[in-house]
Amino acid sequence: MRILLTNDDGIYAPGLRALRKELLSLGEVMTIAPAAEQSAAGHSVTLLTPLLIQEVFDDERKPIGYAVEGRPADCVKLALLELLPWKPDLIVSGMNAGSNAGINVLYSGTVAAAIEGAFYHYPAIAVSLEYTKLKPLDFPKAATYAIQIIRQILRKPLGAGSLFNVNIPSLEKGPIAGVKVVPQNITAYTERFDRRMDPRGRTYFWAGSDLDCPDPHSETDVTALAESYITITPLQYDLTAHAKLADLREQSWTVE
Amino acid sequence: MRILLTNDDGIYAPGLRALRKELLSLGEVMTIAPAAEQSAAGHSVTLLTPLLIQEVFDDERKPIGYAVEGRPADCVKLALLELLPWKPDLIVSGMNAGSNAGINVLYSGTVAAAIEGAFYHYPAIAVSLEYTKLKPLDFPKAATYAIQIIRQILRKPLGAGSLFNVNIPSLEKGPIAGVKVVPQNITAYTERFDRRMDPRGRTYFWAGSDLDCPDPHSETDVTALAESYITITPLQYDLTAHAKLADLREQSWTVE
Repeated sequence: MRILLTNDDGIYAPGLRALRKELLSLGEVMTIAPAAEQSAAGHSVTLLTPLLIQEVFDDERKPIGYAVEGRPADCVKLALLELLPWKPDLIVSGMNAGSNAGINVLYSGTVAAAIEGAFYHYPAIAVSLEYTKLKPLDFPKAATYAIQIIRQILRKPLGAGSLFNVNIPSLEKGPIAGVKVVPQNITAYTERFDRRMDPRGRTYFWAGSDLDCPDPHSETDVTALAESYITITPLQYDLTAHAKLADLREQSWTVE
Repeated sequence: MRILLTNDDGIYAPGLRALRKELLSLGEVMTIAPAAEQSAAGHSVTLLTPLLIQEVFDDERKPIGYAVEGRPADCVKLALLELLPWKPDLIVSGMNAGSNAGINVLYSGTVAAAIEGAFYHYPAIAVSLEYTKLKPLDFPKAATYAIQIIRQILRKPLGAGSLFNVNIPSLEKGPIAGVKVVPQNITAYTERFDRRMDPRGRTYFWAGSDLDCPDPHSETDVTALAESYITITPLQYDLTAHAKLADLREQSWTVE
């Protein structure tokens, strides 16, 4: 099996390294990931500036892939169009430091990289580990869970462009409660900005770190993760509100 | 009527100025947009660095809003949480220089700003003008079409979080063929990178400008726009592949 591994935390991030180690049990792994952290990059892409690449090696100085001075989605594009010597059987993105659930799925560079792979008709899995402030994240342990879920996803043949979002709950909260297949929660988060003044008297804002989702729908990625379940959400990237098409078509639309 | 206007081309972009002029016929308009161009920013947001703001004035030195040194989605967050003196009745994003149809909807900062507004339960409309290399874009003319579509969207009461993606075809191609309500095309584009070498011998890639969508589904935003129709696509931001939930739930999922 041939796997493209990417992420949004950067090619040297510990979450990627831990996941790569587990993925090697499935076959060949080529890592093509951002040179620098790209958290909350969403599905941004680089159109106007060049994308420098650099070959990257493991501790035994064996080549493992390329660092790209670009976005997560750029890495997947470049991998599929230019850098990979083969067509991958699977694209894995992660393991992200911090969960990607609810509407945060749309901000996530980790998930965007997986969606980019699906654009090119490859099956792709995004994997994230819930963050807590208690301790450094236990990526090696979380990766042993991630690889079990990936193996179970692979038991059934994956159609072209199959797309999965997997979240591992914080291991500091206690034992894993189990595994749940759940939809993305789409209720709002509460956010907060600090208003401050710079040394030149200019106003600036700084996003607070306390994201709270006060009213999640039950049995979604947000609630299941809070209950210490590993969550699996099948994704798609059609943003059309299909249910609204018919009503809109009944209206008369004209321009002069 | 109170309108928040934003974009991804930057607060001084001619597309925003043309659209603002038309929107003033509907009521009060406050402009809160990126200080610099943010094309293809997708739904990226700024979590780790400060967001400087600066008040912006029109040619008569009357205040029109704020420039934000951040992403389109940051602008909408800041507007709704900190900067707007009122709750908007409508959020408009654009008019973008270049269409946002097909999977490009996911790369678009223009659309992401509208989606961010929908996260906060406000109705939002993204407006884009198809780009051609023939001539400078005729934003003032295109804005007269955009405002007609926006007025027609407003004829029916908009539910909280109603979201629309509007594309105006290039006016260089000939007369507008009409208006179509269509879903987002989700087939792939063909893309190309130039492989080059920098003066230090390092490899870099540069994304080509010739995006082609060779096999669009018929009666989608991509095909209707190609036929010179103005397109209206109702959007949603639930990325769950709901049709796949039941099958996945039938599988047995465990971790040890």
